Amino acid sequence: MNIVRKIGEFPRNPTIITGFVPTMGALHEGHLSLIRMSAKENDRTVVSIFVNPTQFGPNEDFSRYPRPFEEDCRLAFECGADLIFAPDAEDIYSTNPTTVSVPYVTDQFEGQRRPGHFQGVATIVTKLFNIVAPTNSYFGEKDLQQCALVKKLVDDLNLPTNIRICETVREPDGLAMSSRNRYLSSKDRELAPMIYQVLARSKDLLLNGEDIESTLDLQAKALSERGFRVDYLALVDRLTMHPTQSIIDNASLIIAAYLSNTRLIDNIRVVG
Amino acid sequence: MNIVRKIGEFPRNPTIITGFVPTMGALHEGHLSLIRMSAKENDRTVVSIFVNPTQFGPNEDFSRYPRPFEEDCRLAFECGADLIFAPDAEDIYSTNPTTVSVPYVTDQFEGQRRPGHFQGVATIVTKLFNIVAPTNSYFGEKDLQQCALVKKLVDDLNLPTNIRICETVREPDGLAMSSRNRYLSSKDRELAPMIYQVLARSKDLLLNGEDIESTLDLQAKALSERGFRVDYLALVDRLTMHPTQSIIDNASLIIAAYLSNTRLIDNIRVVG
Repeated sequence: MNIVRKIGEFPRNPTIITGFVPTMGALHEGHLSLIRMSAKENDRTVVSIFVNPTQFGPNEDFSRYPRPFEEDCRLAFECGADLIFAPDAEDIYSTNPTTVSVPYVTDQFEGQRRPGHFQGVATIVTKLFNIVAPTNSYFGEKDLQQCALVKKLVDDLNLPTNIRICETVREPDGLAMSSRNRYLSSKDRELAPMIYQVLARSKDLLLNGEDIESTLDLQAKALSERGFRVDYLALVDRLTMHPTQSIIDNASLIIAAYLSNTRLIDNIRVVG
Repeated sequence: MNIVRKIGEFPRNPTIITGFVPTMGALHEGHLSLIRMSAKENDRTVVSIFVNPTQFGPNEDFSRYPRPFEEDCRLAFECGADLIFAPDAEDIYSTNPTTVSVPYVTDQFEGQRRPGHFQGVATIVTKLFNIVAPTNSYFGEKDLQQCALVKKLVDDLNLPTNIRICETVREPDGLAMSSRNRYLSSKDRELAPMIYQVLARSKDLLLNGEDIESTLDLQAKALSERGFRVDYLALVDRLTMHPTQSIIDNASLIIAAYLSNTRLIDNIRVVG
């Protein structure tokens, strides 16, 4: 069981084909699919487990975010991880730390609702890439805006890693896997799959030529009527994460909605 | 003559001990001393020549900055460079580019007077490090706040390069070498060495126990009387680039002053 806690002890070796799966722990099938993919495609797979404080807002769930560390390690190694990197926050952040900002792709949606979140993500991802020196890095498409950010970040800063985006893994009823699903009451858990149903139905309607705005309005209303608080339901270019008024290449539908206090996000590709 | 223009064509190889000297061209003895040092300490020396638009303010000298490219190449190769990297701005910057910010060390002095300058520096340096993958990177102490920034940047983002700070190279009369010295009229060029004389005299006075504030006031006044427009003359901790009220470890005196429209900066170590 190869677990590294200190940056200075990380066995950095850019000559080994290394796959990297950055996580905040609380691993679910979504993460595990990334780890399996990495293990298949690389000579060595590194999984990081770090609940990154700078990507949580002041009213978000940093302190209660689940941290089942031993179970996470067992699962990661079972799925083919060779090394777990689990640094302490004190080892990661100095006082007055340097920050990395990726504008435009983060202007709207999660970036707008969660000020500071994506700066926290961009900064930690840059640091982890520099520490791990991965050949290939694996991200789940469920966090679509994060995927757009990471691709832009890597292009813009010339970070020497390939970004591999992997399909969202879903529960049998369609709910996208998320560490935050465990916050749902059993009643909310029963309602939650409606999010994906609405995405799938909206996609069909749009591809059948229905009007974008009225379709999305109606579908959002259907969720509200069942008790969701819909934050957004939008058609975007998934490379820029800006809304689009037509069914372009790279069009995705994205959604964020609350059930009680739990915020759920999901997305579906409309084209491509 | 190995000159690379495209990022994609850069022969990146993290297994070769590589020294890196990032420059904006217009090479002088200061740059050449860095290149010679790198050639001595590494198996391969890369010199970049890139007049980085993002580190110039709107009223600064970007368009008239000297670009004697062929002469620069000749000098760099003569001093031991193996490869010159001279990218085009279009190859370096996307629209809505990612930025890197190093707070605190850039709060004051050059960072305060030149808004955006250090974000431009931090971003281009991060990119160049990722492209070149240098083992050792060389910077001149003349740009003291830039040195503090680069050290903090490398620590904070875990960039895998060693930062080597090299002594300021001076003209026989004491004037610090700078690409901008060529802007000086012959009258101003005669006055310019007073900057270093004032630094050296102030250092002696402070080490002899004179009061810091009144000494610096008097010395700045002496420059003003000779026609300089003094922007600042301050005693700082050169690691944080914040003023200090006592002669601490890492104390340096820093100065910025105009002669006509040319801004000159310089510094001297008081301790360490």
